[in-house]
Amino acid sequence: MKKTVLIIGAGGVAQVVAHKCAQNNDVLGDLHIASRTKSKCEAIIASVHEKGAMKVEGGFTAHGVDATDVEAVAALIRETGAQIVINVGTAFVNMHVLDACIATGAAYIDTAIHEEPDRICETPPWYANYEWKRRDACTEKGVTAILGAGFDPGVVNAYARFAIDQMDEVKSIDIVDINAGSHGKYFATNFDPEINFREFTGTVYYWEDQTWKELSMFESGRTWDLPVVGPSKAYQSGHDEVHSLAVHYPQADVRFWMGFGDHYINVFTVLKNIGLLSEQPVTTAEGQEVIPLKVVKACLPDPASLAPDYTGKTCIGDLVTGVKDGHDIELFVYNVADHKDAYEEVGSQGISYTAGVPPVAAAMLVATGEWDAKTMKNVEELDPKPFFTLLDRIGLPTRVLKGGLGGEDMAWSDYVG
Amino acid sequence: MKKTVLIIGAGGVAQVVAHKCAQNNDVLGDLHIASRTKSKCEAIIASVHEKGAMKVEGGFTAHGVDATDVEAVAALIRETGAQIVINVGTAFVNMHVLDACIATGAAYIDTAIHEEPDRICETPPWYANYEWKRRDACTEKGVTAILGAGFDPGVVNAYARFAIDQMDEVKSIDIVDINAGSHGKYFATNFDPEINFREFTGTVYYWEDQTWKELSMFESGRTWDLPVVGPSKAYQSGHDEVHSLAVHYPQADVRFWMGFGDHYINVFTVLKNIGLLSEQPVTTAEGQEVIPLKVVKACLPDPASLAPDYTGKTCIGDLVTGVKDGHDIELFVYNVADHKDAYEEVGSQGISYTAGVPPVAAAMLVATGEWDAKTMKNVEELDPKPFFTLLDRIGLPTRVLKGGLGGEDMAWSDYVG
Repeated sequence: MKKTVLIIGAGGVAQVVAHKCAQNNDVLGDLHIASRTKSKCEAIIASVHEKGAMKVEGGFTAHGVDATDVEAVAALIRETGAQIVINVGTAFVNMHVLDACIATGAAYIDTAIHEEPDRICETPPWYANYEWKRRDACTEKGVTAILGAGFDPGVVNAYARFAIDQMDEVKSIDIVDINAGSHGKYFATNFDPEINFREFTGTVYYWEDQTWKELSMFESGRTWDLPVVGPSKAYQSGHDEVHSLAVHYPQADVRFWMGFGDHYINVFTVLKNIGLLSEQPVTTAEGQEVIPLKVVKACLPDPASLAPDYTGKTCIGDLVTGVKDGHDIELFVYNVADHKDAYEEVGSQGISYTAGVPPVAAAMLVATGEWDAKTMKNVEELDPKPFFTLLDRIGLPTRVLKGGLGGEDMAWSDYVG
Repeated sequence: MKKTVLIIGAGGVAQVVAHKCAQNNDVLGDLHIASRTKSKCEAIIASVHEKGAMKVEGGFTAHGVDATDVEAVAALIRETGAQIVINVGTAFVNMHVLDACIATGAAYIDTAIHEEPDRICETPPWYANYEWKRRDACTEKGVTAILGAGFDPGVVNAYARFAIDQMDEVKSIDIVDINAGSHGKYFATNFDPEINFREFTGTVYYWEDQTWKELSMFESGRTWDLPVVGPSKAYQSGHDEVHSLAVHYPQADVRFWMGFGDHYINVFTVLKNIGLLSEQPVTTAEGQEVIPLKVVKACLPDPASLAPDYTGKTCIGDLVTGVKDGHDIELFVYNVADHKDAYEEVGSQGISYTAGVPPVAAAMLVATGEWDAKTMKNVEELDPKPFFTLLDRIGLPTRVLKGGLGGEDMAWSDYVG
């Protein structure tokens, strides 16, 4: 059952993945971590040992690799003997790493949709542009590829599947992501600013009345009164999981709502309107060609640096409506995470924590065979119950409000009895 | 009396200078214009001919020159036979051009204080850091150098001198610059964004109680009720003229107030707090070294491009208080300019117009001998009356509110009788 795991990436999420793999290395076996900058990998391994996170004796080795080089990644998979690759590098490398897995037979797990540097917000459903084109290759080779296995996408897809499994018919899925934490900086993004801003500069696609609809960012907003964090303003945003859930549940309306404070919106609006969030190069008066978004990223705090002072909680969940035994039914399936707890456990803030724990749970389910699908799957195509059971144990417990927002609060396992 | 003039620079202000020189080439003689990009100079000359701006027959020739190369500028002065250099290039080249004038004996006129690319907001008085160190060299060589002869600094220095000349004792000089115009863009600066932002990112120095005092930008604001433009919020800002007026009139408090709308302040605050207005390089994740401010500049509209759609008016003036015959006396000396009128006359917006007309008036006074000081002078050290007479005629009439703001409105010439 010990599989040998290769982690790709060395950012804030990789830090969490590394700690969580170490805490579960009895299931996952020897561990490897690789990124462009090997020293970042070494620092992560050092922090794992500092926390005494390795559950049983085992290896944890750092490597340098250019993850856009399929051959190099494939060679590293062969060299390390990795049977599971958890890819939490930048989203620009995803298809390169997946191709390396297909070439070597290793299982592939990622947490975000593939992105091409010079394109933003392509035709929906997004997964059809890159990932799903490789589904047949996975099936032919018997390669397990689990797409979007972070929190959102990832856990929220499992929340949707879980809720839908309790119904005869699903009508709508509204995913709501509220970070009520505070990092104390003038402005910072909670993960790679480049990826963060790219999420919000394009068209907001959502699925309603069995068709793709479009909004601009911040065009549609409402206040959601969520458990623990309380009433919070959230805006319809483009997000990966809408693009698989809409395909798998075309009868349901599928929307994603991200919480934003007025300050974030103001900063975002200024930067966007001036053109500073553009992924297209501009030329300075001195003739230097520069991509503005990369300069904004260089000016902003490193998301990993926010962790020590981050306080407060996140609440992310799915409000799912449908019909059961002829009656309307509503469920809110959710998790609350705490920034400070995350930092104390793995040295990261809560956003990295919620994104980094789920792919490790997915890797454990691949290792145990429960999710070893031998083909490509989005998370809603897999049984959510073993996933929830693991997440309950390793730090992201799933809860349910029976009757929807304001309803009776219980553990998911109590709900299903 | 025909002197031959060399204009350095090819931006929005240079466009105005070129047109105004052409309109007065009976006094100024043959005209030359030089910048790094010769084609920009050719475009300006073409616009001069298009408007039929040349008053009498005469030459107007474009040149390419690197204005940071003192030898190259000196060679161009010799080659053209220029006796007057109007330097409206970027403020980074000022001392290079001045050195070329000192080397060749040509008169030098500029409109802004010299800046070094990597330094912002140096020790007050600013003129002592670069310009005044060359005063003795000017005197020895008999070179006329008129510093800061735009509108502010420039005309406002003459306004101060004029008002002080009406008093026995001066107590305070408050210079107020309100642009009540509208360019219709989300955000734009009225002149080179790099220079514009650099004005406001450093310490705000002002002179009070015979000592230099310091503020942060937007720390001190008040509403000024000015002629034509009406009540306008303005904030104490660092500005060149404070640094010469305080030295020449140490008994007076000297403050500069710049009008800003809430939108400008918001955009400025966001960009500054994120670090995007920094003149110090940052390194992107890809290893590219970039100066953020230069990227912001590349994203913003070219100030010259604002001209066709710019509407509204500017009001810039000096409120000067003092004592005359034992009584307190107050004068507001000012000009109102119109963006649309400026565009129709010379193809530029009002801010470029107010900055570009005065150095041409100064050049004409050097040509006629009235301001041919044979040494280095700030504008307040020169007789303001011939300057006002010329400005009245060539587009920037001077008016006076007797008794200060809200007082009786009259032409300066009526005030002196």
